[in-house]
Amino acid sequence: MVCVVGHKNPDTDSICSAIVMAYFLDATPGRQGELNPETKYVLEKFGVPEPKYVDSAKGRELVLVDHADPSQTFSDLDKGELVCIIDHHKNGITTSKPILHISKPLGSTATVIAEFYFNNGMHLLGAKNKELTPQMAGLLLAAILSDTVVFRSPTTTEVDKEMAEKLAKIAGIDDIEAFGKELLKAKSVVAKKPAAEMLTTDYKEFDMNGRKVGIGQVEVVDFSDVEPKVDELLRVMKEKQEKEGYELIVFAITDVLNKGSKVLVVGNREAFEKAFNTKLDEKGTTYLEGVMSRKKQLVPPLEEYFKKV
Amino acid sequence: MVCVVGHKNPDTDSICSAIVMAYFLDATPGRQGELNPETKYVLEKFGVPEPKYVDSAKGRELVLVDHADPSQTFSDLDKGELVCIIDHHKNGITTSKPILHISKPLGSTATVIAEFYFNNGMHLLGAKNKELTPQMAGLLLAAILSDTVVFRSPTTTEVDKEMAEKLAKIAGIDDIEAFGKELLKAKSVVAKKPAAEMLTTDYKEFDMNGRKVGIGQVEVVDFSDVEPKVDELLRVMKEKQEKEGYELIVFAITDVLNKGSKVLVVGNREAFEKAFNTKLDEKGTTYLEGVMSRKKQLVPPLEEYFKKV
Repeated sequence: MVCVVGHKNPDTDSICSAIVMAYFLDATPGRQGELNPETKYVLEKFGVPEPKYVDSAKGRELVLVDHADPSQTFSDLDKGELVCIIDHHKNGITTSKPILHISKPLGSTATVIAEFYFNNGMHLLGAKNKELTPQMAGLLLAAILSDTVVFRSPTTTEVDKEMAEKLAKIAGIDDIEAFGKELLKAKSVVAKKPAAEMLTTDYKEFDMNGRKVGIGQVEVVDFSDVEPKVDELLRVMKEKQEKEGYELIVFAITDVLNKGSKVLVVGNREAFEKAFNTKLDEKGTTYLEGVMSRKKQLVPPLEEYFKKV
Repeated sequence: MVCVVGHKNPDTDSICSAIVMAYFLDATPGRQGELNPETKYVLEKFGVPEPKYVDSAKGRELVLVDHADPSQTFSDLDKGELVCIIDHHKNGITTSKPILHISKPLGSTATVIAEFYFNNGMHLLGAKNKELTPQMAGLLLAAILSDTVVFRSPTTTEVDKEMAEKLAKIAGIDDIEAFGKELLKAKSVVAKKPAAEMLTTDYKEFDMNGRKVGIGQVEVVDFSDVEPKVDELLRVMKEKQEKEGYELIVFAITDVLNKGSKVLVVGNREAFEKAFNTKLDEKGTTYLEGVMSRKKQLVPPLEEYFKKV
């Protein structure tokens, strides 16, 4: 049985893309972690059940969506049979056979899937050319809006907007902006949570040239929700860094309306300062104007830096 | 300026796919090695000039076609900017940014390109939706026929046949089989060359779990062309193996009409015997019934084997 699954610490794009691809492939959607409040809101809105938790690749035929990084997926990936990757991130996975691999530098994996559906037809892996139901279109739309922060992230492309409009028509959603604001509201619930939970809700681990780096992010519509928790966050980050052997942990509090991030840094602060050509204050925080995307704006400078040292 | 380039020791698929993608992208096609006689025949037939030889990635924006393996491309790949991979092999390249990566388990890279053109449109990387000219369609058709050994290789899919028919119409080629035979004839010229040249004409190097493995292949329509050269080939292979520090060198003489390969092995013979569950004769040769594809039939068992030892 084919299992379609997104990355650990799943976000709305990972979950919705897995559900929609599983629908097309008559496969089972899976998840590699707990759903965040935004994703729960989306599944509830469209009446779709949570995918089953999957903790091992063993004996499974796997379609990976929304990731192509060994550190963000099953530790026993080689025990399963990888048949397909559909993604929009940098690639960190090598294969021992030719597989179907579709990755495009677009705002979300859902955009890649929608583009395939509308332009190419879903005759992938023997997939039937099923119609996209209003429910499935709604999931893809939510995933695009979530990953692009309602078209505010610099990762947003014209294709994302184009696909969102087509999907909104099928899903019966008249006002995309209004739907996007609902999502932002559901998402910003995270900012009201305890620091430890906030840190790990949207958190990814990277292997940067042998160094273990963690980057978490929370998106807020109002900084003042999180401001009082900065000290507590730094404490929790420091604890995690020391206990789990991180070279560096970065946490970005991203103001989605003003397009910038307050960044908290523990561990190798010098690496961060050099990578971003910036100065951290005494606590280890700074504000990065225009920075909204972990993938496009936080990861590459750090990888570049660690490649050289 | 964007440069589109196939693998080292280029075959017809690598060269033709690079030329056609460069045409769509208004880019420059390149080659990472000398053309084989078949490819020369194809370019002459369609009146297309040879791509320029390129020996470094430095300062170039790169589109890689027909390969995704660090050992088959520029040793300084990280000095260039990789923007796109279009391929049909296993993937061995990781990236530090999201890029356009389209890989499908089809018979040739030309099939992947043709499928994109007919089903999706070439709006990749800002490519214009140019028409495929008869010349460009001819190149893609030749590449499909070459890589699938005129649909006789087990890597052949229905999509390859479908695309070949569409391309033949545009190229004005009425009899695909007859055109395929012309290619086979041009290709089998290699079998008449000296052993050292025969070995390296279609030769790929692999890193298998730290072990350097070389696999060469020649396709013949008649074994008797090569039979008298087997001893000489084994001698040349042994020399290369020792001089260049190979764990193993395999050379397959593939009979494209009878669908099987005589295989010559030097170096770690035991590895070969275990990987293929076969017995080599005293010289180090055997016949593998049904084996025609390096990528699909020779590489995977060896990689599996070396993964375990």
